[in-house]
Amino acid sequence: MRVDVLTLFPEMFDGVFGASILGKAQEKGIVSLNAINFRAYSGNKHNTVDDYPYGGGGGMVLKAEPVFSAVEHLMEQVGTGARPRVILMCPQGETFTQQKAEELAKEEHLIMICGHYEGYDERIREHLVTDELSIGDYVLTGGELPAMVVIDSVARLLPGVLGNETSAVTDSYSTGLLEHPHYTRPAVFRDMEVPEVLISGHHSRIEAWRREQSLLRTRSRRPDLLEKAELTAKERKWLSSLDKQQS
Amino acid sequence: MRVDVLTLFPEMFDGVFGASILGKAQEKGIVSLNAINFRAYSGNKHNTVDDYPYGGGGGMVLKAEPVFSAVEHLMEQVGTGARPRVILMCPQGETFTQQKAEELAKEEHLIMICGHYEGYDERIREHLVTDELSIGDYVLTGGELPAMVVIDSVARLLPGVLGNETSAVTDSYSTGLLEHPHYTRPAVFRDMEVPEVLISGHHSRIEAWRREQSLLRTRSRRPDLLEKAELTAKERKWLSSLDKQQS
Repeated sequence: MRVDVLTLFPEMFDGVFGASILGKAQEKGIVSLNAINFRAYSGNKHNTVDDYPYGGGGGMVLKAEPVFSAVEHLMEQVGTGARPRVILMCPQGETFTQQKAEELAKEEHLIMICGHYEGYDERIREHLVTDELSIGDYVLTGGELPAMVVIDSVARLLPGVLGNETSAVTDSYSTGLLEHPHYTRPAVFRDMEVPEVLISGHHSRIEAWRREQSLLRTRSRRPDLLEKAELTAKERKWLSSLDKQQS
Repeated sequence: MRVDVLTLFPEMFDGVFGASILGKAQEKGIVSLNAINFRAYSGNKHNTVDDYPYGGGGGMVLKAEPVFSAVEHLMEQVGTGARPRVILMCPQGETFTQQKAEELAKEEHLIMICGHYEGYDERIREHLVTDELSIGDYVLTGGELPAMVVIDSVARLLPGVLGNETSAVTDSYSTGLLEHPHYTRPAVFRDMEVPEVLISGHHSRIEAWRREQSLLRTRSRRPDLLEKAELTAKERKWLSSLDKQQS
């Protein structure tokens, strides 16, 4: 997979693209990550990429031309003729989810556009982009961090990126429940003890405890997830008996 | 404000802490951002910070001691006696929102704990942290990107961080609606024209068009936001007339 990020702050990506999983994925040749300063595509001698908004008001607006030119240049460069996904990072976008990450992980080429406290000229949104994404309901200073978040979540789904040592923990996400508690040595740390069942050696009791904890945690913190989770009839009955006890 | 981030990958933060708004906020002395490798607090000669889970299973678990020691050392260093917010970045946490950002922006000292594809020893969660945060429903390889997201959204709320040139655009968030479209020069780009009203010079017509576009966009993309937004009776009436036309 190739990912091109159009940004005015390419240096923001150095630490994240170079470290850990994303660094290794690039070394293995599974993904190519490029942060590209689209100021180089300004098309004017002052390298201007933003301008005042029509109709007045505060703030600056990113011009259409530099973004169109940069995206078209990247498409020519890749030259497969296949249309890449062109993703605008913006607060008005669709909320990013794991399902969207799985969808994007099937693509060969992603182009991500990051604004930075400016607005975008609407013609970018209407005629150039295929997706608009927001990572959550909070205000950030630019699209750079959201782009990194999307790239990280997509890249870790590509075959060969995660080793066995890392996939196990995150696999539990697929149950649709929050994780059970984890404990490691020492068994007693400052009078705080590990639950007895975990050091009992009874595998079936351990499994049952973990499942129960996972259900209880999901019930108290994210009851919305229980609706869609795969539960046995017995588990649904148990949960509803707890609801009755409380009411 | 002081923000200390405990991580095994401090180098991931270099690009983000150094650039743009966060870089300037530090230069102005408004915020101090520190990425600290908690491996230095392992308390053992092999610098081990994780271990196998009690009860078996895949994945590794971050040990309690290095995290407790690092947090306690930071509290001593700051030495105000005031208890800092100790924030665990984890998928099981409360979903981060703008309201939470505003709450955290009132604090003097934040300590953020980032795991990296391991689980956390549950005693960290139970006895050390004050908040658990998730930035959204997607799987990431670690807590580092979520920590950067939280820091960015909190820091930009601190007085003096945003200049006038940047605050204007984002201020529109406070209306609770999605933004209206923006356009800048040229008025015609490859046959794509700017809406006539924006170049009309009629300020009241421009304001009315923008408000209408903002309402329409929120209605089509994020109808959930309309419930809480501050709308006039006339606007509510207009929106419900649109609903009737469609049905």
